[in-house]
Amino acid sequence: MNPTIELLKSHRSIRKFTDRKIPRKLLEELISAGQCAATSNHVQAYSVIHVVSPENRRKIAELAGGQAHVAEASDFLVFCADMKRSTEAAERAGAEVVRGMTEQLVVASVDAALMAQNVAVAAESEGLGLCYVGGIRNNPAEVAEILKLPEHVYPVFGMSLGYPDQDPEVKPRLPLASILKEDFYDDREDETQVAAFDDTMHQYYLERTGGNKESSWSKELAPLFTTKLRPHMREFLRKRGFEMK
Amino acid sequence: MNPTIELLKSHRSIRKFTDRKIPRKLLEELISAGQCAATSNHVQAYSVIHVVSPENRRKIAELAGGQAHVAEASDFLVFCADMKRSTEAAERAGAEVVRGMTEQLVVASVDAALMAQNVAVAAESEGLGLCYVGGIRNNPAEVAEILKLPEHVYPVFGMSLGYPDQDPEVKPRLPLASILKEDFYDDREDETQVAAFDDTMHQYYLERTGGNKESSWSKELAPLFTTKLRPHMREFLRKRGFEMK
Repeated sequence: MNPTIELLKSHRSIRKFTDRKIPRKLLEELISAGQCAATSNHVQAYSVIHVVSPENRRKIAELAGGQAHVAEASDFLVFCADMKRSTEAAERAGAEVVRGMTEQLVVASVDAALMAQNVAVAAESEGLGLCYVGGIRNNPAEVAEILKLPEHVYPVFGMSLGYPDQDPEVKPRLPLASILKEDFYDDREDETQVAAFDDTMHQYYLERTGGNKESSWSKELAPLFTTKLRPHMREFLRKRGFEMK
Repeated sequence: MNPTIELLKSHRSIRKFTDRKIPRKLLEELISAGQCAATSNHVQAYSVIHVVSPENRRKIAELAGGQAHVAEASDFLVFCADMKRSTEAAERAGAEVVRGMTEQLVVASVDAALMAQNVAVAAESEGLGLCYVGGIRNNPAEVAEILKLPEHVYPVFGMSLGYPDQDPEVKPRLPLASILKEDFYDDREDETQVAAFDDTMHQYYLERTGGNKESSWSKELAPLFTTKLRPHMREFLRKRGFEMK
């Protein structure tokens, strides 16, 4: 295993950080590395808001479901899917632009994610820790308002970044065989593979909680899909100009 | 700049590959590294189809707009957003699952992208080259049929992988200042920054084509948003069970 792959395989979310600040130069280096990720048709359909205001950090920490690290980490970034910059550039070049296509939602969300993952890898290569914060989609309209996001820009997720003050285990992943399929989507082994992974996660939760948490992958997922997680997202995206035409 | 950041910053798409094959063990290592990327609530909402059949490789190369490398590269992967495995696991755990929420489309698309970007970085760290193939969304229904994708799974993009037989330049990116914004979305400099980047790209195209290509970033974007790029995506996603409720 080469050192880069070793780095990728040692990822875990960090939610407790020391007081040490990330130098501005390094932060810029991480974003530059992010920009070098592949981007659909060179569109670069993303913007990153670096939230500096302590008050806004506290507000977003609350809006994201009370995640203290959002306010406490050295830095907090919001990765936005951005169809504004590129469509306006196309208009200035004489195009009659059509906005709000579903394809544009996919392009911009994927572009933002590829970019962010490069930022994450670059950060970890410098000894930093991070936590993705999908929780900003709990209250995306409020987050968009705080960040004064214009139409055709939406906040996909946040990222807390800083020097780690904890050293959690790497969380297990599904068996490779259940993810990687040859030639077609074969799900005949799905139930068996998930059952095996449920055992793995059951053991993992027991060990991490001194025997107090009886759970499994499937049990942890169950409430996610029953409560219609974030049912406001459709209307929120529509209002932001991602009409899903 | 540490070697990992240097690697990230040296990314460029590779579309010509030597005949050398990627060893199966290495391919599995890349996918494992992909699985270690962050995933929303541990859902791991992705599957990867490794397309081995030469006939299917040729078909997909055509469906993606005639991209020869899809058929010629050592390996071709299709990264799918997968809400089937996790929602079925939740059902077996007793949940009354609600499918087709817009939030689930975002979660699964982002999960697949974070995962794929780790695969890309791992591949490049081993001297491989790659090209993302968003072009499979030109004809996503046909691609889904070839791969026998079930409901609640959709093909987000492909990836050609192999040993590079070309050494293209790194393509310039927008200035950092236009991507990274402090505290709020400030677009007052947008037009100026884009104009400067148009100059950069104008120069880049001239140099790469021996003076034959007169273009810019904005000019290249213009046709993308006028032709209603991939207007079938909404209906396609709806039929696949991503109803956008």
